[in-house]
Amino acid sequence: MKGFASDNNAGVHPEILKAIESANKDHEVGYGDDPYTRQAIELFREAFGKETEVFFVFNGTGANVLGLSSVTQSWNSVICADTSHIEEDECGAPEKFTGCKLLPVPSVRGKLTPEAIEHHLKGFDFEHHSQPGVVSISQVTEMGTIYRTEEIIAIADLAHKHNMYLHMDGARIANAAVALDLPFKAFTKECGVDILSFGGTKNGMLMGESVVFFNPELAKNTKYLRKQSMQLYSKMRFTSAQFIAYLKNDLWKKNAAHANRMAQYLEKEIRKIPEITITQKVDANGVFAIVPREIIRPLQEKFFFYMWNDTNSEVRWMTSFDTTEQEIKEFVQLIRKLLAH
Amino acid sequence: MKGFASDNNAGVHPEILKAIESANKDHEVGYGDDPYTRQAIELFREAFGKETEVFFVFNGTGANVLGLSSVTQSWNSVICADTSHIEEDECGAPEKFTGCKLLPVPSVRGKLTPEAIEHHLKGFDFEHHSQPGVVSISQVTEMGTIYRTEEIIAIADLAHKHNMYLHMDGARIANAAVALDLPFKAFTKECGVDILSFGGTKNGMLMGESVVFFNPELAKNTKYLRKQSMQLYSKMRFTSAQFIAYLKNDLWKKNAAHANRMAQYLEKEIRKIPEITITQKVDANGVFAIVPREIIRPLQEKFFFYMWNDTNSEVRWMTSFDTTEQEIKEFVQLIRKLLAH
Amino acid sequence: MKGFASDNNAGVHPEILKAIESANKDHEVGYGDDPYTRQAIELFREAFGKETEVFFVFNGTGANVLGLSSVTQSWNSVICADTSHIEEDECGAPEKFTGCKLLPVPSVRGKLTPEAIEHHLKGFDFEHHSQPGVVSISQVTEMGTIYRTEEIIAIADLAHKHNMYLHMDGARIANAAVALDLPFKAFTKECGVDILSFGGTKNGMLMGESVVFFNPELAKNTKYLRKQSMQLYSKMRFTSAQFIAYLKNDLWKKNAAHANRMAQYLEKEIRKIPEITITQKVDANGVFAIVPREIIRPLQEKFFFYMWNDTNSEVRWMTSFDTTEQEIKEFVQLIRKLLAH
Amino acid sequence: MKGFASDNNAGVHPEILKAIESANKDHEVGYGDDPYTRQAIELFREAFGKETEVFFVFNGTGANVLGLSSVTQSWNSVICADTSHIEEDECGAPEKFTGCKLLPVPSVRGKLTPEAIEHHLKGFDFEHHSQPGVVSISQVTEMGTIYRTEEIIAIADLAHKHNMYLHMDGARIANAAVALDLPFKAFTKECGVDILSFGGTKNGMLMGESVVFFNPELAKNTKYLRKQSMQLYSKMRFTSAQFIAYLKNDLWKKNAAHANRMAQYLEKEIRKIPEITITQKVDANGVFAIVPREIIRPLQEKFFFYMWNDTNSEVRWMTSFDTTEQEIKEFVQLIRKLLAH
Repeated sequence: MKGFASDNNAGVHPEILKAIESANKDHEVGYGDDPYTRQAIELFREAFGKETEVFFVFNGTGANVLGLSSVTQSWNSVICADTSHIEEDECGAPEKFTGCKLLPVPSVRGKLTPEAIEHHLKGFDFEHHSQPGVVSISQVTEMGTIYRTEEIIAIADLAHKHNMYLHMDGARIANAAVALDLPFKAFTKECGVDILSFGGTKNGMLMGESVVFFNPELAKNTKYLRKQSMQLYSKMRFTSAQFIAYLKNDLWKKNAAHANRMAQYLEKEIRKIPEITITQKVDANGVFAIVPREIIRPLQEKFFFYMWNDTNSEVRWMTSFDTTEQEIKEFVQLIRKLLAH
Repeated sequence: MKGFASDNNAGVHPEILKAIESANKDHEVGYGDDPYTRQAIELFREAFGKETEVFFVFNGTGANVLGLSSVTQSWNSVICADTSHIEEDECGAPEKFTGCKLLPVPSVRGKLTPEAIEHHLKGFDFEHHSQPGVVSISQVTEMGTIYRTEEIIAIADLAHKHNMYLHMDGARIANAAVALDLPFKAFTKECGVDILSFGGTKNGMLMGESVVFFNPELAKNTKYLRKQSMQLYSKMRFTSAQFIAYLKNDLWKKNAAHANRMAQYLEKEIRKIPEITITQKVDANGVFAIVPREIIRPLQEKFFFYMWNDTNSEVRWMTSFDTTEQEIKEFVQLIRKLLAH
Repeated sequence: MKGFASDNNAGVHPEILKAIESANKDHEVGYGDDPYTRQAIELFREAFGKETEVFFVFNGTGANVLGLSSVTQSWNSVICADTSHIEEDECGAPEKFTGCKLLPVPSVRGKLTPEAIEHHLKGFDFEHHSQPGVVSISQVTEMGTIYRTEEIIAIADLAHKHNMYLHMDGARIANAAVALDLPFKAFTKECGVDILSFGGTKNGMLMGESVVFFNPELAKNTKYLRKQSMQLYSKMRFTSAQFIAYLKNDLWKKNAAHANRMAQYLEKEIRKIPEITITQKVDANGVFAIVPREIIRPLQEKFFFYMWNDTNSEVRWMTSFDTTEQEIKEFVQLIRKLLAH
Repeated sequence: MKGFASDNNAGVHPEILKAIESANKDHEVGYGDDPYTRQAIELFREAFGKETEVFFVFNGTGANVLGLSSVTQSWNSVICADTSHIEEDECGAPEKFTGCKLLPVPSVRGKLTPEAIEHHLKGFDFEHHSQPGVVSISQVTEMGTIYRTEEIIAIADLAHKHNMYLHMDGARIANAAVALDLPFKAFTKECGVDILSFGGTKNGMLMGESVVFFNPELAKNTKYLRKQSMQLYSKMRFTSAQFIAYLKNDLWKKNAAHANRMAQYLEKEIRKIPEITITQKVDANGVFAIVPREIIRPLQEKFFFYMWNDTNSEVRWMTSFDTTEQEIKEFVQLIRKLLAH
């Protein structure tokens, strides 16, 4: 059964699997000292610049926590959207591992603004107060929206003005790149992002998450933190081989472009149904909608998806690299049928 | 280039890759609520008993830390061998995540004894002293040796007498099962082990580590700890499918038996060379030997392996599921050639 | 120079010093196994009930963190007011030591409401989400206001309905008791509070903070956590002796009643000055006011106090056990003089 | 009842109490921004040099943990004696707060040697291994012995050669200074110690512990760590006033000299009793002895002290600033009487 629950409910793109298979010969030194990893890192450097340091990890939470812990001390705070993954969906991993305080800011459509951040820019040098150390934004946000480059620059400038770092949770960075029609570098490094969680698992990889540092100075202890945070993979070549396949021939772009298109198509079809209200801007591959409560359960039985907000019966529909137009058609048809009752 | 550096330098067994491929269809709910995971868990229950709780994680360090954190509070201590992975090779992950004190005990050939443990069984109820909470043993040990069942029972009895738990790091548990010629259950649960890190990565899996609890009560908070320790995999079906292939048709046994046989063969051939001294009992798939220092570097250039102890030029040679007799022959031949100079 | 900066800028009540002096004879076993500590604990049991467990600690942050860590696991969250001491003024000590996530709730005059709390009562059993474990309220709040008993009961009922605990930060609990004209027990234990930080330092003690548990089951590991959190005092008799003097002859009440009276007097006098606006209800010993910006600096030079909110030039004036009517008169006089310019 | 249990079972020297009383006037800004604290810090700088940074804390565990956490990251290890307070008597506070691994080294009479330390100087740059970061020694050691300056220099040189820091737990530093007949500086800073826990509580203070940094660079984040580790005292003037009285007129020396003399006297008298064997060198104010088991209990009833090693009935007798010759005479007399039975 396919559905719209999450882009991580999809499987693995065949080219990714093929890359794993191709890497499965001979022995390779473990933990990253292998040619696949060297090549994958090289590809990251081609995308982001020569100075880039990149660390492969197991999952998105691992990427976020490793990135944040590399640039914080336990007495720092991390300013983030109240809807962010690090605040809502990581069971306190950031606090537990970094010791930092998270400062969730009421967000608008998943996005932070300089004004909202400024509220927390206080208590500097005052030892009673956790020292603001990082601003963290998600690109794509958890609400399916996207920061424009000027928005990122504004936040980066504010952070840097206060000697803070800007972290971007890019679990869906490929969908953002496609939506913005920009290379990765143009809305990360070049906008002032300092640390990037670069994710591929939600876009067709078996397991492909990484932490990217644009200033190598920030990464000088990351190798120890990666091991200590239980994110160091012994047979790393099999992650690296995936990244090679993912980055080399723009597989990332093909997959994300498709997923985004499917979301737009779904949005278009849904907008024709007056009983349903799209609640968020559809910037990437997520569609949020308020749906008549009575059709949700029967709909979920055929096409699984998650309730987002039980109070107002808002649901989230995610498309993925393997969503088909046909599935969307059937989905919309079923909605119409259920509403007709 | 193949070598004897580590069983995790080997690749993935073809049947494991095939299982991943077979699981790659349709969508599955993420994070373990899928039929592959249910089936894999069922196989663990067949092996260990119905009450068993099992949690899949990313790597061996993750398994050890998740298991230990499930049964400890930060004011506990964990007694382990001074050669153990948790003490020597996890960059302090156990201390960082559990908050516990590790108490390394001088070990003999990688093994703990009740006598050595007893030295640390003190300070109970005394709030100044970390409270002994867990004894952790490795099976196979890091020195390639194996605990006999009566040895495990003796340690378990001692631990339980003091209301402590017995943890087993089974990163190479398959090699132990083959060496002991016993089912997994017979030298774990039935000997009093409470928590088991059950590993498959070193024995032909792409990534297959898990934590097994024989008393479900001990696991009641483990799901939160797994997420918080960054060990929860979104596309978990791809780990579960591997475990199915690994456990269902005794692939684990085939692989481990081969690796052990290769180590015995290597041992046999090496014992014929008077300039080399085997230093540890070869119980499983590791051979430790003192080797004339001058041949180590040239030998490593053809067959990579690690220096174990630089002081006395002791090296470690690991065999794996894909080691061939031919490779060993060539390796021994090269040794003889180098010694002849 | 005396002022209105904080009740902890005051010194020590002479009877407290005398108690320390009286306890200074002979040797006593360290760390709490002494007759002074036994007597002090007895006095807490007289106040709160026989089952009470009490632990003396060094400071208020220590009391809060020890109380919270006794009833949480690292994957829990703690719901608190955005103005609370644990959120704003402890440099992240709660996160660092407990590993928990703090969920600050927009408060009204420093107080939580069931409605505001309910927003965070979600994600139960969902391993991605920090599990709500504790609601923490401050009594007196950081805004100088007080929860009425029915308000506490409503919050306690909500917390307990969700198997959560209610923690009260009672750094100024004496001022609350006087304001409510109730014994300590009537607005803590009897309203459903589970863990209480009971403070005395802000009310004339040299150093007197403690954690009080009404259900001894919650405190069964607290002795280890107190030591591990660096809150165990070797010469504990000297804290215990203070608590004896503080509790035995209602010194706490005399001191707090005086401080509260002085705040009311200050409020009364300030209300006569039209240029100044009292911003919070004066329930205890704190007066918050918006003051013309230009008089703040010269006023602080004679009577030190803190700016509370630089944006609207709101200041905080705290009275203490040793504030005199004469000082308030001079203070108000100076305000009038400065405003006259 | 007075006894020989611990120097922290003694009370407070009258001059210390008087200093507290003298500081008890007017208001002072809290948390260290007061003239007493400034003067106390000045006295530390007179003793240790102008560059010195000093932080007052609540107890010895707090001092050790704050010092270690200031110079470590969680992936570091701390090498210490197996008898050290940080390893044996702090309930895992160092691991919990710093995240570091402690590496206990078998010690001889409580002392580390360069040879024993060297065993752990490995794995540098290797991310699997906790990175050796600090060597920690106690002066006076927990076995009552003292490091000579050349011994400290040798350890410091070894540590610095590996870019590690040398920490000294000086809970009984005054007794060491007297025994060595050297100023504090001569066997700390001038021998290469980097961070010093400087204690006064065991030598007549009410509560006086501190962390001293000889290189201010190491202390640049300590103020945040002190607050976060719950070691920041609001009414700090009352600790500072004690330190002034302690340091200004050499009260520390008077007290420690007396305690040491009493230990020597006790040793001398005990050596005359053939049934008792002194087991450690009596360098400072502790006497360790193997005592016939049957007299221990009755002896403890009159003069409390602790069993040190139950296996061989070794006991520990500590003298303190208020021990009298008369008490020792009575104690020895009682021993003789009990042995006579």
